[in-house]
Amino acid sequence: MARWRMALDDVYELMSTLRAVRRLRPDPIPDDVLHRVLQAAAWAPTGGNMQPWRVIVVRSPERKAALADIYGPEWAKYVEFSRRRYEAMAADDEAKEKLHRTLAAGDHLADHLAEAPVILMFVADPRMMAITDKNLDRISMVGGGSVYTAVQNTMLACRAEGLGCTLTTLHCIREPEVKAALDIPAEWATLAMIPIGYPVGKGHGPISRQPVEALAFDDTFGAPWSG
Amino acid sequence: MARWRMALDDVYELMSTLRAVRRLRPDPIPDDVLHRVLQAAAWAPTGGNMQPWRVIVVRSPERKAALADIYGPEWAKYVEFSRRRYEAMAADDEAKEKLHRTLAAGDHLADHLAEAPVILMFVADPRMMAITDKNLDRISMVGGGSVYTAVQNTMLACRAEGLGCTLTTLHCIREPEVKAALDIPAEWATLAMIPIGYPVGKGHGPISRQPVEALAFDDTFGAPWSG
Repeated sequence: MARWRMALDDVYELMSTLRAVRRLRPDPIPDDVLHRVLQAAAWAPTGGNMQPWRVIVVRSPERKAALADIYGPEWAKYVEFSRRRYEAMAADDEAKEKLHRTLAAGDHLADHLAEAPVILMFVADPRMMAITDKNLDRISMVGGGSVYTAVQNTMLACRAEGLGCTLTTLHCIREPEVKAALDIPAEWATLAMIPIGYPVGKGHGPISRQPVEALAFDDTFGAPWSG
Repeated sequence: MARWRMALDDVYELMSTLRAVRRLRPDPIPDDVLHRVLQAAAWAPTGGNMQPWRVIVVRSPERKAALADIYGPEWAKYVEFSRRRYEAMAADDEAKEKLHRTLAAGDHLADHLAEAPVILMFVADPRMMAITDKNLDRISMVGGGSVYTAVQNTMLACRAEGLGCTLTTLHCIREPEVKAALDIPAEWATLAMIPIGYPVGKGHGPISRQPVEALAFDDTFGAPWSG
């Protein structure tokens, strides 16, 4: 029992300090560290234990540069969109300052993406999935249930290993080019691009999230949860 | 450093023993335990930190029974499908025995779903998401990236707290009925149903997964990874 109490503290500290780290040093990641991070991904649960995902560990300068060339312009568009949306909102100075810092870190990532020692590209094959929301009258999302569990394990492992990382999906907008750059077969989809590396600054730390009371409901949607 | 080495061991033990637990005791979950599990979910990263998900903590006998009534027939259909698909495959006795055990545990869950002390229903609003693969010529999956990160944190927290759980998505097939049962607004989607409770048996333990070498590629899709 004492043993698991200790584990609890560590696990919760890990989760509560896993923030997006966008300023990465180019230093290489030792093979044994990388292997443990990938092993964490492999342990994740997936529908029917099919493990319908694969991860491409991109390390060559040429392939990383190809991904950076695709990502850069999409990031620039996203920044424009975010700044305009934000100016239309009546946000206070503190919130504006925070957005500014986040976007500056994102600019840094976009400018230096090819210098990250490793870019992980998670791909998945929908033919290996039973996507239960595929026939509904809304956009499908359930396919992600067999991939982002592994992605979250990956990021938690990075945090535990002292590696910085951030989950990005902007590359999907130009998926055909991404697939060409990494020889990904037609049937496979790209779900997550995760640049990882040792942080320039202190890396992980406090995160800003809504409280449980804003996210959990009691028995029915909208009923305040106070348990 | 010694401190994080310890954390590493615990975190990896947690991930590598998080298996689906389908036989749950009806005993209630203390409020402080449940709160920590929900807090773990709240810490998860989401696109633009929008946290576009909510979780309904279903505990009343009536609502749980309504979910069990929806889930049961879908599980029965899934079992039929699985058994037929399996008989068509040339599987060895060991694999057949394993499937039999998994399906028997699933039958137990379906029969006793209403007796689980808590059923977590994760819902999400696509209007709060930038779904970057929505215009591609394939089924969309990226929306799940802002929900299943929280789902994985939830399950890891359950494991750390000694609670059994399993991720199910079969309920999506009958999402309109699920939404009616829990008063979920039209715009919201249901992404994960997670019954949780203290395990009947020893609960978590060894899991069966493909090795890293079968899941990771070196620089391009299909290139063996041996890093």
